[in-house]
Amino acid sequence: MANSPSGESVAQRIARVLETFDADRSVQTVSEIARRAGLPGSTAHRMVTELVETGMLDRDRDGRLHLGMHLWEVAQRGSRALRLRQVALPFMEEVQLRLREHTQLAVLERGEALFLERLSHPHAVSNITRIAGRLPLHASSSGLVLLAFGSEELRKKALSAPMVAVTDETPTDPAALRELLDRVRRDRLVIARGFVEPVSTGLAVPVHQRDRVVAALSVILPRDAPTAGAVDELRRAAAGISRALDAPFE
Amino acid sequence: MANSPSGESVAQRIARVLETFDADRSVQTVSEIARRAGLPGSTAHRMVTELVETGMLDRDRDGRLHLGMHLWEVAQRGSRALRLRQVALPFMEEVQLRLREHTQLAVLERGEALFLERLSHPHAVSNITRIAGRLPLHASSSGLVLLAFGSEELRKKALSAPMVAVTDETPTDPAALRELLDRVRRDRLVIARGFVEPVSTGLAVPVHQRDRVVAALSVILPRDAPTAGAVDELRRAAAGISRALDAPFE
Repeated sequence: MANSPSGESVAQRIARVLETFDADRSVQTVSEIARRAGLPGSTAHRMVTELVETGMLDRDRDGRLHLGMHLWEVAQRGSRALRLRQVALPFMEEVQLRLREHTQLAVLERGEALFLERLSHPHAVSNITRIAGRLPLHASSSGLVLLAFGSEELRKKALSAPMVAVTDETPTDPAALRELLDRVRRDRLVIARGFVEPVSTGLAVPVHQRDRVVAALSVILPRDAPTAGAVDELRRAAAGISRALDAPFE
Repeated sequence: MANSPSGESVAQRIARVLETFDADRSVQTVSEIARRAGLPGSTAHRMVTELVETGMLDRDRDGRLHLGMHLWEVAQRGSRALRLRQVALPFMEEVQLRLREHTQLAVLERGEALFLERLSHPHAVSNITRIAGRLPLHASSSGLVLLAFGSEELRKKALSAPMVAVTDETPTDPAALRELLDRVRRDRLVIARGFVEPVSTGLAVPVHQRDRVVAALSVILPRDAPTAGAVDELRRAAAGISRALDAPFE
């Protein structure tokens, strides 16, 4: 594939165009895309035309661009994200029905916790997570599970990088985090009180597929809510998801 | 962007590579991708390497390829599919809880019904739909809603093309379909008995956003189950989704 003068591949430029869309910018003009992707207008125009032809972008009646329904379709239909989410959903619904708080499923994706699913209750406590949203590994209850059960290489990298204090209580000291992660591996549980939002406590447990932790299942409780019942619910649901994942793929 | 000797753009070839993945082929080698996408091995190899760099594909420990978690993330986060699905989910859950049968949400995508969401019950009747799966407009209850409330141009195109009889009962006669679609517009309802599977009846109603039909909400019942209660549930849920869609986007 031909590379641009900057040495970037066409695939990289396409990814950059697609990445300019998010929940707050779901409709854009070609010039907005060009500016946000850092591409010359003529290049952006040509790429957008081609992406509309393939269905990766859709153009509306006013000529503005959306991410394509076909892109969503392709990304869903063979994806591990969908399989995991489909297997987990009934168990998550049960947790959500009983606890009536946000219930979430996250996986490790390039050094962050990526949220595959989130079930919410209208009266649930505040929670900044979105589906397909991300949180730093060291700050979120899900992220800490993924970090604790990830590779030593991942931990070294995460703990040596500068860590953002999302709140005053977010752990950012590498030594304290090492100790916390040891406890997480021992207890198979994270209780993150105020790490992401001062008003909330995140609880998270690992979800296994065979011998590997493939996801974190979490609920977000009001900060000082009792945790014991929620932990039991989470553990039961995580065990159910793991059993279903290990069953032969029908 | 440079085009291949066949005049195909890089975007089109990338789309072709991504489209080789589906629920039954979620893990592939480079040579399988090359063969299915109809690309020379060296081209496929280079494209796959670039797609892995951008996160559109992931490579596992054995060197085999999956669709990338990052592709899923990008496709989700700014998408109308996600917004529609998020708004619809609580209403669909209520329908599913009361009827205990498959509950589905579909949109029009390039002349077919594309299913954005499907909630299932372990004891529900057989249903061939998958999330991100497709069905022909003339054959499925959802498709008939989308066809009835689509443009006249869409109907002309759909009714003049050869129509597959998925079962013996699938309507494929253009004149009979015209009449059926008139009734659908009048009743705002499709009852498709045996159109997709002999053992099932699909019920579907339109979902509006402002003045436009943007989706079809459906349930799949056993063939001879009573439909009146299910129709009431569907209409109530569709009205709720439409109200929520018209509310300002928070």
